[in-house]
Amino acid sequence: MTNTINVVQYGLGPIGTESARKILEKSDNGIRLVGAIDIDPKKVGKDLGEILGSKERLGITVSNDAREVFRSTKAHVAVHTTSSFLEKVFSQLAHCAESKVNVVSSTEELFYPYDRHPKIAEELDALAKRNDITIVGTGVNPGFVMDTLPLMATGMCTKIRSIKVERIVDASHRRLPLQRKIGAGMSVTDFEEKKKSGTFGHIGLRESLLFIAAGLDWHLERVEESLEPMIATRDIKTPYFEVAKGQVSGIHHLISGYNNATHSLSLNLKMYIGAENPHDSIFVDGDPPIDLVIKTGVFGDSATVAALVNVIPLVVASAPGLMTMKELPVLRSLGS
Amino acid sequence: MTNTINVVQYGLGPIGTESARKILEKSDNGIRLVGAIDIDPKKVGKDLGEILGSKERLGITVSNDAREVFRSTKAHVAVHTTSSFLEKVFSQLAHCAESKVNVVSSTEELFYPYDRHPKIAEELDALAKRNDITIVGTGVNPGFVMDTLPLMATGMCTKIRSIKVERIVDASHRRLPLQRKIGAGMSVTDFEEKKKSGTFGHIGLRESLLFIAAGLDWHLERVEESLEPMIATRDIKTPYFEVAKGQVSGIHHLISGYNNATHSLSLNLKMYIGAENPHDSIFVDGDPPIDLVIKTGVFGDSATVAALVNVIPLVVASAPGLMTMKELPVLRSLGS
Repeated sequence: MTNTINVVQYGLGPIGTESARKILEKSDNGIRLVGAIDIDPKKVGKDLGEILGSKERLGITVSNDAREVFRSTKAHVAVHTTSSFLEKVFSQLAHCAESKVNVVSSTEELFYPYDRHPKIAEELDALAKRNDITIVGTGVNPGFVMDTLPLMATGMCTKIRSIKVERIVDASHRRLPLQRKIGAGMSVTDFEEKKKSGTFGHIGLRESLLFIAAGLDWHLERVEESLEPMIATRDIKTPYFEVAKGQVSGIHHLISGYNNATHSLSLNLKMYIGAENPHDSIFVDGDPPIDLVIKTGVFGDSATVAALVNVIPLVVASAPGLMTMKELPVLRSLGS
Repeated sequence: MTNTINVVQYGLGPIGTESARKILEKSDNGIRLVGAIDIDPKKVGKDLGEILGSKERLGITVSNDAREVFRSTKAHVAVHTTSSFLEKVFSQLAHCAESKVNVVSSTEELFYPYDRHPKIAEELDALAKRNDITIVGTGVNPGFVMDTLPLMATGMCTKIRSIKVERIVDASHRRLPLQRKIGAGMSVTDFEEKKKSGTFGHIGLRESLLFIAAGLDWHLERVEESLEPMIATRDIKTPYFEVAKGQVSGIHHLISGYNNATHSLSLNLKMYIGAENPHDSIFVDGDPPIDLVIKTGVFGDSATVAALVNVIPLVVASAPGLMTMKELPVLRSLGS
């Protein structure tokens, strides 16, 4: 990389602030943080250093005017971390594209948007191509452990009968918004009520499933999905709050797809406070079989930030358009 | 993929014949076997079906005239499996390029040729670009378990201190040429003698190391490599031959690289008859750490064939030039 990539951090929640920190740390590795965007009135107008809890002023003022930030900073890439939902972020992504700024986004629904939001996906692809930029959604999950890594594991096989992916996360160590997302501390009744909203629990499992299926050219004629509460079997305390025995400790989210009765693909996600034996595992029943385990699992918050930052040079080098992780080269750590 | 990819099998040793079989099996998945090349006079002129041990005639006659095969079959891709050594295969690869045929090769030294053979790498890249084709070397090792997969694992990390990759292979179940390559059944004296040839043991470990280092932009100022015999602690019988107690049962090949005293990278390969607890493992001491194990290890012979066949559509879609697995999109199974 000969030219420095100017990066704007778009969204300063827990993931966004951590991403800003990492981009700053890597500023001698071909990337440079040049701007920060957030709509929170408590953040707008402040120096980013203050938002990051540092005493040092960075000379980057948080702004709520994305287009103005892109223009004044000559931005090449936005690291976008504002929401899980594509309808909510469409106009933000469109502003990036119209400003000719590449997008790396943690929006879970963007990881594989063609099923749930085919129209938006088409529009984003057209916008990206017209403005000669690339848009990609990534992270750890969706983004890696339950989709890109299993897909890559199949690359060692000539025949596949089934793929089983499992991720067991102990949410005790995860950020507060995630603990809220999984309903920790709720009653079972409230959980069932909240579930009806459709925006509750882990977002992206369906996207992971359809990403793998698309990569394998499997046409799933049946998809089954369930979301159930995990129930605390004892009183549990986290740095953020307490979960009493009998309350919800998290989620059990399961999705399976079937292709021609000959192929099955299942993704089994449990995220709960106090999970035992946390791990990620991938079993490909193929020729040869692949039986892969990541002990204790990939730690979500820091890995998501890593995925976002590490993909920056790949996105800049990519052909224009809306891309997914299976169109990009293998991810690798940037400036380690 | 709308157009069928015409594939020629270039080399009909154990890996090549298995590759030909798999390409034939996948003939309704956008690839089609159209030709076969080998120099063995016992194979030339025969129908490929006979070589594959099938009663069926395939209408593909084995030829030793590569250019003629490429011309008459309108080949798009050669799956090239003739030798581990780049100097030996250079003219074969050049013929492919000049015939405007993309190359997927099992030549271990081609996996990352820039260190050991920079001049050849440069020539191949120029030839490939001039003829608008892509050349890539891949397989399971080098190609996946000790290089591409570890590199991809680092994609989840923002900071890395060290990477340790280990592959323990029980060679009892592997093809005969591999058992010979690792010196099974030799005396220790013969092993040491043979070692001096420089073409003995596993080929590609140095390539794997330098591939990872290049992917991470690490400039290794020190590389240490050792090749030692594993000694049988009991009499062992394989389907091919016997190894007596005290004879060589295989190899222990270790390579380490160091970058700035802050980073280390080590690849530890043991391939021997009767290996206990065979597995592949990758430990990235990073933020977050990644502790990945493939139980029993990826089975080499069939996975190498899978890697070669699965990469075909990625190579056809790639920009022209000499590529490595880190420039191509994530591998995935073709037509499973």
